[in-house]
Amino acid sequence: MDATPVWFMRQAGRFLPEYRQLRERYAMLELVQTPELAAEVTLLPMRLGVDAAILFADILLPLQAMGMDLAFVSGQGPVLGHPVQDAEDVARLRPVDVETELGYVLETVHTARQMLAGTAPLIGFAGAPFTLASYAIEGGGSRHYLRTKQLMHGRPEIWQALLDRLTDVTLAYLRAQVQAGAQAVQLFDSWAGTLSPADYRQFALPYSRRVLSGLSDLGVPRIHFATGTAGMLPLLREAGGDVISVDWRVDLRRAWDQIGHDVAIQGNLDPALLFVPQNALAQGVRHVLAQADGRPGHIFNLGHGILPETPVGNVQFVVDLVHRESAKAKGEQL
Amino acid sequence: MDATPVWFMRQAGRFLPEYRQLRERYAMLELVQTPELAAEVTLLPMRLGVDAAILFADILLPLQAMGMDLAFVSGQGPVLGHPVQDAEDVARLRPVDVETELGYVLETVHTARQMLAGTAPLIGFAGAPFTLASYAIEGGGSRHYLRTKQLMHGRPEIWQALLDRLTDVTLAYLRAQVQAGAQAVQLFDSWAGTLSPADYRQFALPYSRRVLSGLSDLGVPRIHFATGTAGMLPLLREAGGDVISVDWRVDLRRAWDQIGHDVAIQGNLDPALLFVPQNALAQGVRHVLAQADGRPGHIFNLGHGILPETPVGNVQFVVDLVHRESAKAKGEQL
Repeated sequence: MDATPVWFMRQAGRFLPEYRQLRERYAMLELVQTPELAAEVTLLPMRLGVDAAILFADILLPLQAMGMDLAFVSGQGPVLGHPVQDAEDVARLRPVDVETELGYVLETVHTARQMLAGTAPLIGFAGAPFTLASYAIEGGGSRHYLRTKQLMHGRPEIWQALLDRLTDVTLAYLRAQVQAGAQAVQLFDSWAGTLSPADYRQFALPYSRRVLSGLSDLGVPRIHFATGTAGMLPLLREAGGDVISVDWRVDLRRAWDQIGHDVAIQGNLDPALLFVPQNALAQGVRHVLAQADGRPGHIFNLGHGILPETPVGNVQFVVDLVHRESAKAKGEQL
Repeated sequence: MDATPVWFMRQAGRFLPEYRQLRERYAMLELVQTPELAAEVTLLPMRLGVDAAILFADILLPLQAMGMDLAFVSGQGPVLGHPVQDAEDVARLRPVDVETELGYVLETVHTARQMLAGTAPLIGFAGAPFTLASYAIEGGGSRHYLRTKQLMHGRPEIWQALLDRLTDVTLAYLRAQVQAGAQAVQLFDSWAGTLSPADYRQFALPYSRRVLSGLSDLGVPRIHFATGTAGMLPLLREAGGDVISVDWRVDLRRAWDQIGHDVAIQGNLDPALLFVPQNALAQGVRHVLAQADGRPGHIFNLGHGILPETPVGNVQFVVDLVHRESAKAKGEQL
């Protein structure tokens, strides 16, 4: 069927009842670090008819491998012990031998790929250096990213040392995922949108570019994800990626015009629309499809991760609607 | 002196030690609702040399006047009891006689204006209908605005009734502030940036436009403030205002090109930059000034409210730097 492909950030997450059942038996890290379980979770959303499986893992695993204490605290999200504050903290971050220290992720990739048996491609992923740095410095999520911005502007030499280390690990990690069987990779710069365009250009872009260009010889599609970037889409494109992901705060057509039509685009439904009645949800889906105008290179997705309480029926509804309407529109264009 | 004017959102707030001292003696609502105290707070930041006084008040006061329970909970921010969920809740919101029920704000305006004695203009303000609605529905701040978006899309007739009421009160409230002596007004649509452009156009823009156009006969400058709007700046302009405020997530030059040069612009330093060493802070300030290019109609400001722990010395530094550099640049242009 010639239809627009659709998948969702966090599609293997908490909104699925099967996932919540597994989480009752296993802690988050246990689930992520046991390859047969992580592979099972990776495949859970395939029953909805999504067009790709996304590796079940967490962007903070490389920070743990570098020596940081990582815990998932209920109701609070991830917490990293002893956040990075100075040059000594950076020096303490270990280089990572991906094959051994993150070998469980590679095994998950391998197992999930076998389980999929060619029914859908498997997408691997990693956090972008800037977003990883913000977690390492803030010790978790943040509202204003004050410590991150203080280090970045106040101690640029420490910033650079930190980002260099994160860049090296991220690149090695993604290359290893591809070698283990990932057929596409996604670089998550989830919090890049907290930066001004000038700061993004100076403090984040060079590192993301190193990761993305360092993957080019592998011949797999590279998806570059960020949110809140409506004011700096050309910079995202400059950083690289075969697909740029945009959120719902910008019209997809306008975003694509700015990014350039030689690059594919992923997006951009507001995740909150999965909570509204299906007639209004359908209108939102059709708006995104209309903006993409049936152009090849559009991947239907949300603007950010699927929210935990999202009704599964509405996710199924969106998958089916995207497939049906886009196939119909493409049929009419022929 | 022919220099770029500068003031700050929340300049009369917690970052000032004098304010924190007052807050040790008075609860938030007591401070806001005692005109002589609120006027005193309004004038506190004038010692820094800012070019306007901004009324000390809170955008949620009209919701309280409409009958909602409002409390400021330490560490949690504002909390509104019995959030709006259905048509009955909307019907329960009372029309407001601004002169009596919000008379204390008008008295603050009057007193502050007298105390300023012509040394600087006084800016009044109100929350925009969409942002007020989001507080009324969520019962406080929110991360994903799920209930707001559910009501908006799921019960559009209730949404419209709610927004109509909020629009009427907001317009009457701002008109009364001008009549009491405010020399400019600011409409705060702080959370408009959570909406997609299509949703903003349908569910927020018409109400903000009614407020802003309903002030046009008064002959005072209308400032239209929102954040996270880099993807929909032309819509902000369409909603109205003589000045559009933009945040740091878009280059000011690019924003102005989109908004149109026949409208003034306010912005757009990242509030986090007030926490970095002064050489880096100065670079950020100069970047904003360079983007504005000495054009008349630029008001230097932050992209959002000044943060509570901001060092006062850095605020003073920015005020002085903006005045000095912009005066120099304008002198050179002559």
